[in-house]
Amino acid sequence: MEIKNQATFLYGGDYNPEQWPEETWQLDIDKLKTAKINVATINVFSWAILEYAEGKYNFTMLDKIIKLLSDNDIKIILATSTAAMPAWMIKKYPDISRVNTNGIRQKHGKRHNACPNSLNYKRLSLGLVAELAKRYYNLDNMVCWHVSNEYEGYCYCDNCARKFRIWLKSKYKDITNLNQKWNSNFWSHTYYDWDEINPPMKISDLFDNGKPVLSGAALDYQRFQSDSLLNNYCVERDCIKKYDQNHAITTNLMGSKKDLDYFKWAKEMDIVSWDNYPESKEPISNTAMQHDLMRGLKQAPFLLMEQTPNQQNWYPYNALKKPGEMRMLSYQAIAHGASSVQFFQLKQAKSGAEKFHGSVLTHSNSVNTRTFKEVKNLGNELSKLSGSMQHARNIAKVAIVFDWESYWGIENSIGPLENLSYVNEIQRFYKAFYDCGISVDIISQNDNLQDYSVVVAPVLYMMKPSFISEITGFVENGGRFVTSYLSCLADENDNIYSGGYLEPLREVLGIQVDERDARSADEEINILDDCNNEIGTTDGVCDLVVADHADVWAKYSGNIFYDNTPVITKNNYGKGQAIYCGSMIDEKGMYSLVKRICSGTDVIIKQANEVEISIRSTKNENFYFIINTSDSEIKIDNPCISAEVLLSDLKVGKQINLKSFGVVILRESK
Amino acid sequence: MEIKNQATFLYGGDYNPEQWPEETWQLDIDKLKTAKINVATINVFSWAILEYAEGKYNFTMLDKIIKLLSDNDIKIILATSTAAMPAWMIKKYPDISRVNTNGIRQKHGKRHNACPNSLNYKRLSLGLVAELAKRYYNLDNMVCWHVSNEYEGYCYCDNCARKFRIWLKSKYKDITNLNQKWNSNFWSHTYYDWDEINPPMKISDLFDNGKPVLSGAALDYQRFQSDSLLNNYCVERDCIKKYDQNHAITTNLMGSKKDLDYFKWAKEMDIVSWDNYPESKEPISNTAMQHDLMRGLKQAPFLLMEQTPNQQNWYPYNALKKPGEMRMLSYQAIAHGASSVQFFQLKQAKSGAEKFHGSVLTHSNSVNTRTFKEVKNLGNELSKLSGSMQHARNIAKVAIVFDWESYWGIENSIGPLENLSYVNEIQRFYKAFYDCGISVDIISQNDNLQDYSVVVAPVLYMMKPSFISEITGFVENGGRFVTSYLSCLADENDNIYSGGYLEPLREVLGIQVDERDARSADEEINILDDCNNEIGTTDGVCDLVVADHADVWAKYSGNIFYDNTPVITKNNYGKGQAIYCGSMIDEKGMYSLVKRICSGTDVIIKQANEVEISIRSTKNENFYFIINTSDSEIKIDNPCISAEVLLSDLKVGKQINLKSFGVVILRESK
Amino acid sequence: MEIKNQATFLYGGDYNPEQWPEETWQLDIDKLKTAKINVATINVFSWAILEYAEGKYNFTMLDKIIKLLSDNDIKIILATSTAAMPAWMIKKYPDISRVNTNGIRQKHGKRHNACPNSLNYKRLSLGLVAELAKRYYNLDNMVCWHVSNEYEGYCYCDNCARKFRIWLKSKYKDITNLNQKWNSNFWSHTYYDWDEINPPMKISDLFDNGKPVLSGAALDYQRFQSDSLLNNYCVERDCIKKYDQNHAITTNLMGSKKDLDYFKWAKEMDIVSWDNYPESKEPISNTAMQHDLMRGLKQAPFLLMEQTPNQQNWYPYNALKKPGEMRMLSYQAIAHGASSVQFFQLKQAKSGAEKFHGSVLTHSNSVNTRTFKEVKNLGNELSKLSGSMQHARNIAKVAIVFDWESYWGIENSIGPLENLSYVNEIQRFYKAFYDCGISVDIISQNDNLQDYSVVVAPVLYMMKPSFISEITGFVENGGRFVTSYLSCLADENDNIYSGGYLEPLREVLGIQVDERDARSADEEINILDDCNNEIGTTDGVCDLVVADHADVWAKYSGNIFYDNTPVITKNNYGKGQAIYCGSMIDEKGMYSLVKRICSGTDVIIKQANEVEISIRSTKNENFYFIINTSDSEIKIDNPCISAEVLLSDLKVGKQINLKSFGVVILRESK
Repeated sequence: MEIKNQATFLYGGDYNPEQWPEETWQLDIDKLKTAKINVATINVFSWAILEYAEGKYNFTMLDKIIKLLSDNDIKIILATSTAAMPAWMIKKYPDISRVNTNGIRQKHGKRHNACPNSLNYKRLSLGLVAELAKRYYNLDNMVCWHVSNEYEGYCYCDNCARKFRIWLKSKYKDITNLNQKWNSNFWSHTYYDWDEINPPMKISDLFDNGKPVLSGAALDYQRFQSDSLLNNYCVERDCIKKYDQNHAITTNLMGSKKDLDYFKWAKEMDIVSWDNYPESKEPISNTAMQHDLMRGLKQAPFLLMEQTPNQQNWYPYNALKKPGEMRMLSYQAIAHGASSVQFFQLKQAKSGAEKFHGSVLTHSNSVNTRTFKEVKNLGNELSKLSGSMQHARNIAKVAIVFDWESYWGIENSIGPLENLSYVNEIQRFYKAFYDCGISVDIISQNDNLQDYSVVVAPVLYMMKPSFISEITGFVENGGRFVTSYLSCLADENDNIYSGGYLEPLREVLGIQVDERDARSADEEINILDDCNNEIGTTDGVCDLVVADHADVWAKYSGNIFYDNTPVITKNNYGKGQAIYCGSMIDEKGMYSLVKRICSGTDVIIKQANEVEISIRSTKNENFYFIINTSDSEIKIDNPCISAEVLLSDLKVGKQINLKSFGVVILRESK
Repeated sequence: MEIKNQATFLYGGDYNPEQWPEETWQLDIDKLKTAKINVATINVFSWAILEYAEGKYNFTMLDKIIKLLSDNDIKIILATSTAAMPAWMIKKYPDISRVNTNGIRQKHGKRHNACPNSLNYKRLSLGLVAELAKRYYNLDNMVCWHVSNEYEGYCYCDNCARKFRIWLKSKYKDITNLNQKWNSNFWSHTYYDWDEINPPMKISDLFDNGKPVLSGAALDYQRFQSDSLLNNYCVERDCIKKYDQNHAITTNLMGSKKDLDYFKWAKEMDIVSWDNYPESKEPISNTAMQHDLMRGLKQAPFLLMEQTPNQQNWYPYNALKKPGEMRMLSYQAIAHGASSVQFFQLKQAKSGAEKFHGSVLTHSNSVNTRTFKEVKNLGNELSKLSGSMQHARNIAKVAIVFDWESYWGIENSIGPLENLSYVNEIQRFYKAFYDCGISVDIISQNDNLQDYSVVVAPVLYMMKPSFISEITGFVENGGRFVTSYLSCLADENDNIYSGGYLEPLREVLGIQVDERDARSADEEINILDDCNNEIGTTDGVCDLVVADHADVWAKYSGNIFYDNTPVITKNNYGKGQAIYCGSMIDEKGMYSLVKRICSGTDVIIKQANEVEISIRSTKNENFYFIINTSDSEIKIDNPCISAEVLLSDLKVGKQINLKSFGVVILRESK
Repeated sequence: MEIKNQATFLYGGDYNPEQWPEETWQLDIDKLKTAKINVATINVFSWAILEYAEGKYNFTMLDKIIKLLSDNDIKIILATSTAAMPAWMIKKYPDISRVNTNGIRQKHGKRHNACPNSLNYKRLSLGLVAELAKRYYNLDNMVCWHVSNEYEGYCYCDNCARKFRIWLKSKYKDITNLNQKWNSNFWSHTYYDWDEINPPMKISDLFDNGKPVLSGAALDYQRFQSDSLLNNYCVERDCIKKYDQNHAITTNLMGSKKDLDYFKWAKEMDIVSWDNYPESKEPISNTAMQHDLMRGLKQAPFLLMEQTPNQQNWYPYNALKKPGEMRMLSYQAIAHGASSVQFFQLKQAKSGAEKFHGSVLTHSNSVNTRTFKEVKNLGNELSKLSGSMQHARNIAKVAIVFDWESYWGIENSIGPLENLSYVNEIQRFYKAFYDCGISVDIISQNDNLQDYSVVVAPVLYMMKPSFISEITGFVENGGRFVTSYLSCLADENDNIYSGGYLEPLREVLGIQVDERDARSADEEINILDDCNNEIGTTDGVCDLVVADHADVWAKYSGNIFYDNTPVITKNNYGKGQAIYCGSMIDEKGMYSLVKRICSGTDVIIKQANEVEISIRSTKNENFYFIINTSDSEIKIDNPCISAEVLLSDLKVGKQINLKSFGVVILRESK
């Protein structure tokens, strides 16, 4: 189920009038409407107001807020308020609070910290959600339900331990099987009874750096906690569905955050929504990657549920977005698949943890601020864009595989590097495609490959047999497959594949890898291509690749014992080609590698500069999003001279002149 | 009540003979007397000796120590010994030990860690203090009482939680009022019963970095703990007063330490005393600032209760004080208002946490050490200085406002910078005045402004309405008022002022601030004055100032979107002027700013070099303290040629030649 | 008791077939045998397999493993498996798990974490060990027993507290004596009852940085825990000895690891064995030092129980050993006294904390890997070396004193530097001798000095009266004694010697030290010799040495107040000389100092380059180990032209040409 078709883009954000006197509400709404705000996410943290004692509800304030918005023609995204518990509840039922990795039970405070396996939590949260669903299921102006908020974190309480044992029993059936899968004979961990198993925590089987002794157990606990929280989502969703089959249901995700297997989650969500909070100096390709990942969860448009109009507050330095930067980032989101542009939040909190987080109405509460004016300008623009754009699809010939289990597995590993970041490695590959102007889909190991010309699986540590077989067919049939260091090492229990690294892909890749060096940043070495031209440098993980029947595209060079050893290889297999990249190559080298990977395919390389061009298509139209991600003026060739220019009365000719953070949208009829 | 007039300066320090065999005592005293040591602080950590079981006291050793000192004409500062509990006591009453922010009850050990709300602690400490007061109230050679030691730190136990609720109830009367003041609807924190409220701790409402969710709650807990510890002080004081109305009572404070609101504390103290432990590379202006703060607590002379004669031991590198440096620092203390020079400690501990902390008698126990000789020389000098100097007052035309609640409030805030230090920002302003040779008083928001020409309120985050009104009158009547970034943002509950930053001062300052950038040190930008001359650079917090009807004294300059935006403004208001400084400007820029602030006032700018000149005055005399804070020789103009030279037989003429760390004191008759 | 004489070197390592299907065992063994592997350490972590419920044993698998090895002529080092407890055991007896320094009881997990004072642990571990000893005491191919594994860490539980009090009572007899020795009057720590004493932990008497308030108490707890763990070792050993008086017993130590007083431990061990895991960039002299320390524990050959054939996994960057480097390190071990070369491990784990730790058979399980081939080559070489070499002794004329109590004492100290590392300071001195090509013994304070020409005691913080008297005699009789900053400061309770630093050595050294500066690395200053030539620089601890009747060999120089103050002195005393080094001098300065120290003695200085030459001798033979520790080719003079060349058919003449990591062994008949 999708959200109902909207005539124009959803434009708005989180709104918490419960923090303000009622007499100010209409005044604020009047201001927001001048900015063409048309949607408000409400009721995100109101449980303590709605349920003042167990089973005693008071919807007076929420009714008023909903009436206020309805009267003002503002649509509603209605949250369930279960992401932060009332103080009375924790006092009455301490088991609802989580126990941390040091075994300490938390007291009331903060948010996103209910034990997902607490029966009290489930009973009480469902009680509230049922009341909400019954009361508001037929709100005319509701866009969708918003379950809880930013699910995250794990619990380590005894109740979770008990549920974990049941989860394991159901998965492994008998304890001998579990022992085998977990390789429990390691360090005398053999279990004889399910009750002997505890969650891996710092006071049990995790080291101080959070890495586990039994990697299989740690992985299962990550799966179990992700599932437990997903179950919290599902029971709320099912409760709502009982009363309301008309509105879509979502919860706001957080990009590549580690805790939850979002591919599994997305299956249970009607539409994906997410919160985009890049740090000010983060490469713009990272934001693009996050959008593509969020789109990739369902290979469908998504809601941009939150972004800040001006600045965050939790970074070491919270820089202001520059003039035009918020607009640029908003269009980047749309270009990558967003159906909405929403802010956290519409009115800035006067106190508390988020008081210095930016907002549409800042602390001055004025419409004359730069922030408000930029929000208003964007609101006016979006109101003129066709609603059809919201459902247009992004098309890519290249797919990059993202996999939460590999993310967990490789970051659980002790060695070869202490601080390996899975997401950084995905971004290393993504950025090279981005810099070549190539659109990318981010997919899971379970997705279809048939529409892609190039499939890239970086650090796919726990490559599944089904994916291996899929990829083998893909290459046989002419596809280009790229994989890297630390890929295809372990099975689903994090047991290294018998026969060694890459064993199941040895034929496809035509190589072997037995040794893997690790180099710090001050030990970087050169990479030469097969004409002995330096194409870049590398450090971190350095695989010593043995090219059995693969061609050597590049080799290490320098005062090292593996000077001249292959680092990048290409193997012809069937009608296709399989490329292996054995090291953490720098930007320049990756750029050169991606150009070579794509040459001879239907993937078109555009010189990208700092201008991003994305296309979203419907049956009848193509929308070109041409975005200057820099604060300098840039001139580029018009990629589609025949197209209509949106957003502007300006005509564009053969060349397009993009101002600082400038955006041009072209519509081409098919 | 002041300490009794002393014929000469008090000169001595902490003395712990209980750590040494009795037969060594007189030998040590004989040595110390050669250095003109005339006062010893005793009984600081002897509770376990004095009370060997509950209610069983043994004063034999203390009697002997007192007799020893009395027989040797050494005055006594008598501590109450309640700063470290005996082991038997914690074993018997575990509730006396604090619970930490992770909810873990401490066991016996360390010091300064009694739960301030433990009834057992109160009963037992008062029991001891009553015995002491009864026994020693009429000691002839007692200078003053010294309650406990370096009060610090907070407790988070259930008993504190209960007392906190009572404290809150008495403050807010009904829970709805508390909810409003704390903005508790934020993140579903609404309370229905006082019992639902817990201390903000890491396992409740504080994040890992110690920052709170509800800033109002955190502030109240800081006030409550400061008050709880102050109550510990007051009940000891009152107990003593019952038996002894003749001796002053103090406790040793720690400069700008964060935990306790010393302005509130000082009201309960007869005289302020404090412990001065600058790190070896700390700018000398910081020490000056700390002295001025301690003097400012009561706007009166204070005791320098502790300093090290040679080196500390708890810094990463514990450098030795250079020859003359200890003397220089001692006179700096006197110049800023000290009535005593005291050391920690007179004889170096042979083991334990302080064994490598410096001492007058070092581990060699020799009088031939450099340390002892320097102490002795200073003792001889001080013995010749007139006692009247001790009560002379410092006079300043400039006041800087220091405010513990703003300190807590801004450092509780999440954003705009993670690691903002309130004290560093006060020092940024103080140093600029110091470098201009300008004497400064440090005052609270409640002090009178009438005697000042310039009042500076940097980062006065929680500016009180009473101060705002006071300052408005001050400027109207011709005063110059300076304030800065992050000032006048929030009310006493840390709720941002309705209408935005600086709202209550908008007319006085003639500006608005809505946006605030945050820049790391490697992103510094230039500041140009109104003639486009670069006056300095800046980073950290950068306010984008809108000058409504204020003059622009300086603006940002560089490749930034707010190039040319005002950063320093000056507004004429009434007969006075209000200056706003919107960014964390570097030393050079601050120096230039302060010169401009003071020009046209009666504040005289002296070229300071590294020579500090301070004046203390009595009805009849002015004392000039001319201090070379550097280890190079410096020549300066004599500021008062007619004056008598103290400390030295040297005549000084138009010029004064100051050796490395050299000090000249001049006495001018009025 | 030594291990039984072996015809050839023991060559093998840890072997954990219990982690693999039985059908793979023989296949693996076949491969290992091609590399001349002749010993396997087994049963290190099999407790959970052996004892599946309390008192229920199952030796089926171990029997099979032993049979497998025996059938294949592979010797066995049989571990007792008590280093990691079964999960059922912790569930049944939670007291077996340790309590950490924050007072939190650990759950099942990890390893090396039994409470050493748990009676349940003792009963259960002895139960298992008795079964093992009864069953396997007369194994023909057993080399020795291997008790537990890498003993380490401390426990802070209530049971340890109770046992600690008994230990203290037995040591101090009455509590007044303890109070005096601990200087407990410090900070009111006076104890009246043994029950008032707790282990020093972070929630009692340790600061957050782990440093104690009462240093005497902390030292005693370190002694007590070291003794408690040693007792665990001893009771297992005694249990084995009841059944088996024929095999030696060892446990694997860890070089200069801090936790345990290995000199005390070694007395209880038949032979020392240890695990050598240098970080890839660690100076090779550090490894040499560690070997010499391990040899020094008994002044006898030792087993190299573990090293990695290629890479570790727990460092930030786990570099591969270069070709030849593992061989070089193996011969370095032998050159310094090893009787075996053993790896962790023979077959790489497929999952768990050590899956990326290197192994003889890597994940590929192939004999064609570089690692396997290097292991095989070395196996072939070792198999040809005479068994007599294993028992040959190393001869040195220089001894460096290592002392665990000084290690604990100085690192417990607060000041003069926060991050002083005892081991780094030992290595500073060791390296200077190493760079001069001088062989060194590492000895304890209790060892005989008569065979040495030079005895060096760096940072011997707690120099014992017996050693002082020994060293005084040593110098009187013509020896050269060298000591340093932070030596001879405190007695066995960490009370500073009455009279000050170095007091008991003042006559021997001819100096006094009263002041000690501390300088950060960016404040380094120069050292000039007595001809005013710069010999090096220094920072860190800088003693201001007063040369009473000693000659000044070097002095500080620079813009410091102690410019020209002595830093190195030499005193003639009796027939000998006593040298004092007062500062942490850099490599260049230390090299020059050591040359001067040795000049005029029978210690021969060889220009070392990066070639290490060691000699092991039997009654009839000298073995020269000439090791190029670098990866460059180096030519050196043949130190013994008449000798036979081992390992190679090559003749060597006056010069020896050493390839990258090249090793030449010469045998000289006496």
